[in-house]
Order: sequence, then structure tokens, then C-alpha cells
Amino acid sequence: MDNKFVLKGSIAYSVNKDTIEAIDNGYLVCENGKSRGVFKELPVEYSNCEILDYSDMLIIPGMIDLHVHAPQYTYRGLGMDCELLEWLRTYTFPEEKRYNDIDYARKMYEYFTYDMQRGFTTRAVVFGTIHTEATIELMDQLEKTGLITYVGRVNMDRNGEDGYVEKSTETSLDDTKKWLDLVNGKYKNTKPILTPRFIPTCSDELMEGLGKMSQNNDLRIQSHLSENKDEINWVKELVPKSTCYANAYEMFGTLGNDKNPSIMAHCVHSDNREIAILKEHGTYIAHCPDSNLNLCSGIAPIKKYLSEGLHVGLGTDVAGGSSLNMIQTILTAIQSSKAFSVCVNNDYTPLSIEEAFYIATMGGGEYFGKVGSFIKDYEFDALVIDDSKMKSDRNYNPSERLVRMVYNNADCVIVDKYVCGKQVYKR
Amino acid sequence: MDNKFVLKGSIAYSVNKDTIEAIDNGYLVCENGKSRGVFKELPVEYSNCEILDYSDMLIIPGMIDLHVHAPQYTYRGLGMDCELLEWLRTYTFPEEKRYNDIDYARKMYEYFTYDMQRGFTTRAVVFGTIHTEATIELMDQLEKTGLITYVGRVNMDRNGEDGYVEKSTETSLDDTKKWLDLVNGKYKNTKPILTPRFIPTCSDELMEGLGKMSQNNDLRIQSHLSENKDEINWVKELVPKSTCYANAYEMFGTLGNDKNPSIMAHCVHSDNREIAILKEHGTYIAHCPDSNLNLCSGIAPIKKYLSEGLHVGLGTDVAGGSSLNMIQTILTAIQSSKAFSVCVNNDYTPLSIEEAFYIATMGGGEYFGKVGSFIKDYEFDALVIDDSKMKSDRNYNPSERLVRMVYNNADCVIVDKYVCGKQVYKR
Repeated sequence: MDNKFVLKGSIAYSVNKDTIEAIDNGYLVCENGKSRGVFKELPVEYSNCEILDYSDMLIIPGMIDLHVHAPQYTYRGLGMDCELLEWLRTYTFPEEKRYNDIDYARKMYEYFTYDMQRGFTTRAVVFGTIHTEATIELMDQLEKTGLITYVGRVNMDRNGEDGYVEKSTETSLDDTKKWLDLVNGKYKNTKPILTPRFIPTCSDELMEGLGKMSQNNDLRIQSHLSENKDEINWVKELVPKSTCYANAYEMFGTLGNDKNPSIMAHCVHSDNREIAILKEHGTYIAHCPDSNLNLCSGIAPIKKYLSEGLHVGLGTDVAGGSSLNMIQTILTAIQSSKAFSVCVNNDYTPLSIEEAFYIATMGGGEYFGKVGSFIKDYEFDALVIDDSKMKSDRNYNPSERLVRMVYNNADCVIVDKYVCGKQVYKR
Repeated sequence: MDNKFVLKGSIAYSVNKDTIEAIDNGYLVCENGKSRGVFKELPVEYSNCEILDYSDMLIIPGMIDLHVHAPQYTYRGLGMDCELLEWLRTYTFPEEKRYNDIDYARKMYEYFTYDMQRGFTTRAVVFGTIHTEATIELMDQLEKTGLITYVGRVNMDRNGEDGYVEKSTETSLDDTKKWLDLVNGKYKNTKPILTPRFIPTCSDELMEGLGKMSQNNDLRIQSHLSENKDEINWVKELVPKSTCYANAYEMFGTLGNDKNPSIMAHCVHSDNREIAILKEHGTYIAHCPDSNLNLCSGIAPIKKYLSEGLHVGLGTDVAGGSSLNMIQTILTAIQSSKAFSVCVNNDYTPLSIEEAFYIATMGGGEYFGKVGSFIKDYEFDALVIDDSKMKSDRNYNPSERLVRMVYNNADCVIVDKYVCGKQVYKR
């Protein structure tokens, strides 16, 4: 692949949360891994570039999966009659425990990374398990896919089920440091991220230790927040001094800042006090609508978070969510937002397609820098999509084709996939 | 294909609304288009039958789509920011009007029937348009697929947009009779069904005329009921004497009876009075969860309807629903039921996988007779499904595989499809 090339096709991308730019038979220019912009006519300065002609295809930015559990992939779809805490104890912890066996971990992670490479996702923020060796194996495999990811070795020093727990607070912190040393400088596309599972499985001392580790080493943190009501009540018992769940993270110095923002998955039940805390820290909310319905957690008021100016990205949360398919997850975000509007608050305007597409691309992309759009100077993550299975006599414009893809993802086939200007998958 | 044959594989099917029977490496026997039952060991009397070995595959009954609009297929996914009445005026009526052009209709219906033949659906109850010629074209095409269907030429003598309306009540009734004469005895698998669109587009006289036609000729009726609050209020204005929307249908003699039950799509907002009327008439509720979310209609309390002993089937309602995929629709039924439980009534238990699978197969199947199960003497509609893309090290039993398919339909491929013992599609 040249340093400089052009994709020709029907191009659609967000420029902000309310606007999708759409250009039929347009030119998307890549130079040194970055977008040089989208043009109706190819500018003279790029006239000598290689043009890849995808005239019948739809070209959109890659999807950013802001929250996904790699070791849960192979049992996705099971246990969906449970709520969160029962589901973790019955399905999740016993399965993740098995990743102590590196051969098992390798094979299972191969299933995960194989599908990740072929799916709509170009960047992701990923949970591993409490096992250092397995987490490094996952990072090795993800690095090979060409995708850009943050990957976390999970910390949990209490309330694990059936022995799925680290020996002590001290070993949890020590093993985390060892893991960081082992992966330091090892990868181009794969970064470590500190990953306390959530307050119920992490003692105060562990949380404080991770908070300090984060601050001293400019390391980011991911965790879960206000997903389920029983969970929230438990956190209140575990950290009685906290004013709310987010404040508990804040007390331990784990909510990050604008330079190194934390990702908090879910935020289904965050009230105004919690929202203010997340805003102050520049926290990213990973909205996981599929998971939130499956585990009966509730429906997060994402429209409100967006209008408050919070950072919001989209996550599949496999295996609370049952599919890595981010396009399907966009639809679930819209549909669950409509359910909220109809069932909870008739004055709540549901998420528009523009907003839902935005959080799946630019919203989560911002966590990685200038990512998730084809605006000039954004990193060149692109999907070329064949949507010809949706036959019609109409000439749909790229914007309509995008909407139809969201509503009919199974009829759309990924033809070509680029990350930072590098082709990472071809049909 | 022999008169008698056996499918070998992992077999799962409903036997009632609460129970899925699942047999690993089982034998499903077909004789003269009917199931002879499912066996762990092949009975001696069938030992000379041809055995089709699908040992690695999942075998389930075909899906029954109890409500789908064929002429809306090619614009599915568009206009999903509207509610029902605006959506009908802006998208639906202008498109359906085009089916006056038989060449256009033929081509569009080819797109619809092509995908129907290849999808999970084995039987369907289908809306056409107000055009006799186009509706016969649709019936011709559906007959060729091998699927078993009811197809309706739509009646509407008022409140059509942009001229999409029949000339008069009289011509609506006359043209319906002519259509019935033209298709009478023409098909093996395709039956006509009277199809007043809904009360807002059908005058009292038209409804009464169709009611009589139904009773005099043992013809069934399909329509829409209590989908959207504005629609319900409109019906109250249009038929001021009715005690509720269902009562309006009842007044006109269009709700049917146990022998010739009507199908009423949606029933999102049916109260106890309406439920009692539907029960009395043995009406089938076509639950369309995808459509009900997309058009912000609401969430139908299906669990309640099932516990009241009402007949409930599942419908895609393309293009209020955006996909013909019934497996995806099962998932949406479960997820929207969970949203109802979490957001509206915490005492409401969400639909179980057993119930959701039941309504998609046996629940709607009952409308066609002994259909939708592999119980002995049920008509032999079967899908053979390759779910090997969902890799794992576990040996999932057929019941778990079924659940995983529902949660990951895109990873499942139809290998073989039978209707009444006849192969209608092969990968």
C-alpha cells in the first residue's frame, strides 16, 4: 500500500454529533495514515495518487468499541436470564478462571481476535482476565490484527467466585507492575490500561494503589459504573463514605483527567451528582445498550449525557452484549432510547441516527485522538461496505444507505478495512 | 425427495410455551409431509429410510411470520424517525401507490420473495397493496418459493395520501370479489386473506362489507389494532359508538371466530376490555417488537397476553420492522420485554427464551394448523442451521445452541429448509 492513496465511493461520516456528511461518488484521500479530507472532485495535488475504485460501495469510518470483554466471547448468548451479579458469579468468573491455562486462553483469544479483525471495529478498549500470561497473549494477538487497542489485565482482590480472585492486594499490585514492565515498549498498536474490574471486587487499598499507579505513570483506567441497582447498593455498603458510586472511584484517584481520561462502562443509573463528577474528570461513558437490556440493567439516558457535553462512546460489552457487531449495537442504542422515550419519559427525544452513529465513531474515537471521522487530519480508519444485497430501484444517497445499513446490518458485507491508512482486512 | 426420510442432528423445538425439547444427535422423521416425531434412537420401523446426516448442525422448526408487508420491503430502514401515521403518509402510501405499475411490482416482489425463500421463515401472512394485478403477481411468486402463505389485497377507501386509495367503497368490495375469483383454486400453498388496512382507511360500509364477505365465504381477515396512541384516538373519533378499537372491528363482524380467526397486528395498547374481546373471538395477536420500537409505538405486554391464554404469534412487520429475520425478531421481543420490565413494571417478568421461541414457531404456527413444532403429526417445516461460526471449546447442548443462535443470528447460516416435508431451499 502506498503512503498516499484515494478511496472512491459513497462516503458518509460524522462531523459532529448532529451532522453526517455524505458525498456520493466522492474521493477520500489518505496520506501518511491520515485523512486529507473528502472531495467531490479529486484535487489536482492528488491526481497522481492510486485510486481504489469502490464506486458501488459505501465508505464509512471504522467503529470504536469502547468496552468489550475478550474472555467472555466464547460463551456469548448464555445466561441472559440473569441480572448482573448472578450472571458474573454463575457464568463469567468460572469461565475467566480458565484463562489461567495459557493453552486454553490462546485458543479462545484466537476466536475473539479472528472475528474482531473481520468485523466493523477498528479500535477497541478491552478487558482481559486476572492472568498476566493470558493477557499478554491477548495483546500479542490483537497487535497482529492491525487494530488499535487498549487492553487491561483485570484486578480483583475480593468477592471473586470459586477462587477467581488474586491472592492479595499486594500481589494484585505487584503483578500489575510486572505485567506493565513486560509489555512496555513491546507493541505499536496495543497499549496497556489499568483495569480494576469494579468496586465490589477491588478493596480500597487496591483502588488507591491503582489510582497512584495511574497518576505516576500516565496510565489510563477502565472500569464499570452504575450498571445495576443491586451493584450500586453494594458499592454504597462497601464504600460508606462515598456520596455516590462515581465518587467512590474519585476518592481513590481512579477517575482520571482530561489528559488521561478513564472509561466507565454503562452509567445506566447516574444521577445529576454523578454526572457532574464525570464531567469534571472528562470521563468517557461507554454506552452498552445491548448488554443493558440483556441483563435487565436498564436504559442509560444517553441523549441527556450528550446534551450535558459528556464524552460518550459505544461498547458491545461482550458477553453482556452478545455480539461484536457495532452496527447492530448502534441500532440497539436507538431502539432502547426509543423504549426509554415511550416508557419512561415522553419528553425525552430518542437518540437520532446521527447521534448514535456519532457515538460509535467520533464519540469513542476521541478517546484515541483525532479518530472516528474523515475530517482532514483525522487518522485514517475506514470501512468499505458492500450493501448491494439490499436491492431496490431507488438511488439511495450515502446518508440513506448508512441508515439502511444500521437497520439491516446482516445484509452488509465488509469488503475492505483500514486502520491508520493500513489495510488490515480484505474480503 | 422420498416420501419418508430422516434428519439426523441436534434438534430443538417447542412443545408448549414453557418448554423447549432438545435432543443431541437425534433423529427427526418425516413421512408424507408430517413429523413422525423426534427420537434418540431411530425406531426399527424407519430403519430403511434415507437418513440425511446433519450431525454438526442444529435442526429447528421453521419460523412463522404472522405479519409482513411485501411492498414495503425495498425501502426498509427508511423513515425510522417518524411515528406511525406520519410514516404511513410520507413513506408507505407513496411507495405502495407505485405497485399500480405491474413491471415495477414484479421486480420489487422478486426482491422480497428471493429473500423470503432464503430466510428463516417457512410460513407467512402477508400484506400486498390495493392493486389486484400486483397482488396476484405476489401470490404467483410466493407460490413458487414453496413457502405457505396467506396474502392480502389491501382495502382502503378513505384517508389514503396522494391518491393511494380505492375509488369508492363499492369498487373496493367489487375488486376484492374479482380478485378472489381470479385466485380461487389457483394455488396449492398460497391463500387469499381479506385485508382491510385498518379502521382509519376503511369506511364503516367497507368494513361491514368485508365482514359479510368473510362470514359468507369462510375467509379470514388480517388487520392492525391498537398500535399507536394517535391512531387509537383517531379510531375513537371515526367510530364513536365503539367501546374500544377492538370493539370497532367486532361491530363490523371482522374479528373472526375460532374456526376462522382474524390476525390483529400489534395490540401494543390493548386494555383488559380489549383483551376480553380478542379472547372471545380467538383472535391472533401478531407481535411486532422491532416495528413497535422503531416507530415509537410502545411495547406490547406479550407475557400478559400469553398468561391470559390469547393466541400470540411473531411478526417482522417489514417495513415498520426493518428486517425479515425472524431470529433477530425473537431477540428484539425478549429485549423489548426486558425494557418493559425494567422501565414500566418491575413486577412484569420478561419473556423467556422459551416463550419468545414459542410465539415465533408454535404460537403463530397454530394459525396454520398443527404447525411450528416437531411433535408427532405436526406438518414438517424444518430449518437446518450451521452455527459453527460461533466457535467454542464447550459442547453446547441443542437448547444452548438455540439460545446462542437467537443472540447471534448473524453467525448462523441456513443450510437446508423444508416446508411440509419438501425441500424449498438448500445452501
